Amino acid sequence: MSTIKFSIEKELNKELGGETAKLGRAGILETPHGIIETPAFVSVGTKATVKALTPEQILDTGAQVVLANTYHLYLEPGDERIKKFGGLHKFMNWSGPLMTDSGGFQVFSLGAAYGKELSKIIKITDPSQMITERSLDSEMPRLAKIGADGVSFRSHHDGSLHYITPEKSIEIQHNLGADIIFAFDECTSPTEDYRYQEEALERTHRWAERSLEHHQKLVHASVLKNTSMGKVGPALFGIVQGGREKSLRKRSAEFIGNLDFDGFGIGGSFAKEDMETVVRWVNEILPKDKPRHLLGIGEPEDLFMGVENGVDLFDCVAPTRNGRGGTLYTHRGKINVRNAEYREDTGSLDPECNCTVCKNYSRAYLCHLYRAHEMLGGTLGSIHNLYFIINLVKCMRESILNGNFEEFKKDFLSKYLFHQTT
Amino acid sequence: MSTIKFSIEKELNKELGGETAKLGRAGILETPHGIIETPAFVSVGTKATVKALTPEQILDTGAQVVLANTYHLYLEPGDERIKKFGGLHKFMNWSGPLMTDSGGFQVFSLGAAYGKELSKIIKITDPSQMITERSLDSEMPRLAKIGADGVSFRSHHDGSLHYITPEKSIEIQHNLGADIIFAFDECTSPTEDYRYQEEALERTHRWAERSLEHHQKLVHASVLKNTSMGKVGPALFGIVQGGREKSLRKRSAEFIGNLDFDGFGIGGSFAKEDMETVVRWVNEILPKDKPRHLLGIGEPEDLFMGVENGVDLFDCVAPTRNGRGGTLYTHRGKINVRNAEYREDTGSLDPECNCTVCKNYSRAYLCHLYRAHEMLGGTLGSIHNLYFIINLVKCMRESILNGNFEEFKKDFLSKYLFHQTT
Repeated sequence: MSTIKFSIEKELNKELGGETAKLGRAGILETPHGIIETPAFVSVGTKATVKALTPEQILDTGAQVVLANTYHLYLEPGDERIKKFGGLHKFMNWSGPLMTDSGGFQVFSLGAAYGKELSKIIKITDPSQMITERSLDSEMPRLAKIGADGVSFRSHHDGSLHYITPEKSIEIQHNLGADIIFAFDECTSPTEDYRYQEEALERTHRWAERSLEHHQKLVHASVLKNTSMGKVGPALFGIVQGGREKSLRKRSAEFIGNLDFDGFGIGGSFAKEDMETVVRWVNEILPKDKPRHLLGIGEPEDLFMGVENGVDLFDCVAPTRNGRGGTLYTHRGKINVRNAEYREDTGSLDPECNCTVCKNYSRAYLCHLYRAHEMLGGTLGSIHNLYFIINLVKCMRESILNGNFEEFKKDFLSKYLFHQTT
Repeated sequence: MSTIKFSIEKELNKELGGETAKLGRAGILETPHGIIETPAFVSVGTKATVKALTPEQILDTGAQVVLANTYHLYLEPGDERIKKFGGLHKFMNWSGPLMTDSGGFQVFSLGAAYGKELSKIIKITDPSQMITERSLDSEMPRLAKIGADGVSFRSHHDGSLHYITPEKSIEIQHNLGADIIFAFDECTSPTEDYRYQEEALERTHRWAERSLEHHQKLVHASVLKNTSMGKVGPALFGIVQGGREKSLRKRSAEFIGNLDFDGFGIGGSFAKEDMETVVRWVNEILPKDKPRHLLGIGEPEDLFMGVENGVDLFDCVAPTRNGRGGTLYTHRGKINVRNAEYREDTGSLDPECNCTVCKNYSRAYLCHLYRAHEMLGGTLGSIHNLYFIINLVKCMRESILNGNFEEFKKDFLSKYLFHQTT
C-alpha cells in the first residue's frame, strides 16, 4: 500500500504513434503532506534548508516540494537527532511534501572526494583501477570503497570513516521521515567503460532489491505499531542507472520498473548530448502509471527535454547556487547581474517575470548587493531563480493541459537560447 | 518649516522634581513616510540593506524605521546614482521612514582605518599627535586628515582619496533622500584629552552651523523648484558631542540645542560607565519638544538607561551583527546558539519571545544552521534579535504610557542581567 497516489491528467500527444509520439504528461502526485502538480521542479534543501531562504520565501517561489540530502543530514546534525525532533518536516519548519535522496551520489562524489570540490561529472584518473575501489584523486586513494554489501567512505567534513549499505540508507531516510525516499544506488561517471558500467549496474540492482526489502520491513513494523492502521512510512522510488549504454539503460528500466517501487528516479552523470536518448529509452519502458524523477537536472533546455520525454519531477541545485553567485535566469538567457554593466541599469531583472524580485528591485540594486557582498543578494537571487525555474515547469504543465506545449517550447527556447549563446 | 512633527504623549514621572525626575517620554514622530512611535529602536541598513533581511522581513520584526550609512553609500554605489534611481526608498524597496547618518563616525573610524577592523571605541596610539592629523594605526599614518573645512580620508574599500565637508555630507544625504538626516560631526574617542575634545567640539559646532546653512539652502532651492509649495527635503538633526566632559557636553547641548535643527543626535564613543551621566547632562538642556537620537547604542541595559533619561531613538548594528554570528538575545540573557550544548535542545530559542523564529524553530535547528554555515542561520538570528530589541523598546514605551516603567525595567533586567553574568 503506497502512501502516495499518482494520476495522469493529460498526455502530450497520445494520438501520435511510434517514433513521433512524445512521452510527456501532466499529472497529480498526492503525498501525505500535500499535492504536487506535475511536471514539477523540486527545490533542493541540502542541509534541511533551501539555502538562504525561509520556508515562507520557498513557498513564495511557487515551490510545491523540497528535496533534502541524506548524506549531508546523516553526517550533520545526524538522522537520529532529526528523528528525535519529530522528523525533517518539523525540524526545518516545512509542512509541504518532502523528499530525500539516497545519499548514493554524494557518497561517491563528496565522500570520495574529501577535501576536493567536484562537479556532477565525476573525474576518474585511472579507470582501470576503479572496479572495486574508486579514488577520484590520485593523491587521496581509498576514500570510497565499494563492496558488494555497501560503500565505506570518509566524511567530507572531518575525514571520519562511515559505511553505508542499502539497509542503512533506508534506515537513515526513515529516520529523516520525508514523504518520498530513494533506493541506494551507485551513480557512475559517463567516462567509465562498459565493463564497469555493467558491474556497477548489477550492484545498483541488487541494492535496489535490498532497499525495497528493508523498506517494506520497516513499513510493516511501523504499521504493526500503529493501531490506526493508517498509511505509514514514506513512498520509495527505485533508481535506474546504466550510464550512456542503451542496452544497460533498457535492462535497468526493465529490472527496476518491475520491482514494487512507488516511483522511479533516473540517475547518472550525463554528458549533455546523451541525456535525451537515455531519458527516452528509460521512460519508454518504465510503468506509465508511476511518477518519474530525473535526478539533478534543472537547466531550462534540459527541463523541456525531460518533460516531453515523460519526466514528472526534477531537482537541481543550479537555481540556488547560481542565485547566490549572481547568475540569474531571464527570458533572454542567463546574466551575471554582478557585472559592471548593470550598475546603472534601472530596469527590472526580467520584465517578463512576475516574481517579487523582478517587481520590486532594479538590476542596479541587485548589482550593488552582490558587489557589496550583502547576503540579501544571494537571497533575492535565489528567490528569483527558483521562481523562474519552478514557474517555467509550471508553464510546461499548463501547455500540456492546453495542448500547446510545442509552441510554448519553441517560443521560450528561441528567445532564451538565442540570447544565451550570443 | 520642518518635514517632521514630534509630539509627546506622556512623560515618565513629571510630578517628581529635581534630581529624582526621570526625563523619559513616549511620543509620536511623524515623517513623510509614516509614523514612528517613540521611544523606538532604528534598524541599521548600512549599505541600503538591513543585512540578510528582505524589506518584508524587516517589517515582520516590528521595525518602524531604518537608518542607512552615508559613508558606505557615498563610496558604493554612490549617492548620485541612488538619486538618479529616485532615492534610497525606491532603490532599496523600503517605503517606511528612513534616516541617514552624517558619515562622520565612519570617516573617522573606517576611513581612517583603511584595511583594519575597528570597534566603536577608537584606539589612539599617540594622542599627542592627534590634533589635526589622526592615525589609528601607527603603520598607516595620514589616512584621515582633519582640517577646519572638512576631512580628507581614504576609502576602506580601495584606498582612494576623498574629501568630505559639512556641505558635502549634506549634499550626499539630500541625494540619498532619507526622511531624517544628520549634521556632519567629529566623533571623538573617550581616550582623547580635554584639549583635543574641546578643539574637536568647536569644529563640530562650526560644522553643525555650516550643515544647517547648506541644508536650508538646498531645501529653499528645492521649494522654489516645486510649484506645489509642499514640504520638501529631509529633516535635519544636529549632533551633540563633547566626550565624557560635563562642561563640554553642556556647552554642546546648549549650542546645538539653540540652532534651528528638527531634532538631535547624541554622539560619541562612550565608555559604558560614562553613558548615563552624559545622556542626562545633555537631555536636561536640549529642547524638550524635539526628538533625540542616541547614536550607535542598542544593548538592553543601555536602552533602559537611554529611555529613562529622555532618549527617543536608538540605532545599533549589534542585533544584526550578533544575529549573523549566532549570539542571540533571550529574556534570560544572550546565548551563542552555535555552542554544542544546543545541538540536542528541542526548546524554542526564547519561550518568552513571540517572534516567528521562536514560534517555529528549535534551538537545535538554529545550532545546526550556524554550524553548517547556512545563510538561513544569519537570517533567522537577525530576525529574532531585531524583533527582540525593537519589541523591548516598544514595551518600554507601553510601560511609560501605562505608568509602570520602573516595574517593567526591574523585572526585565533582573532576569536578563542575572543570566547574562552567570
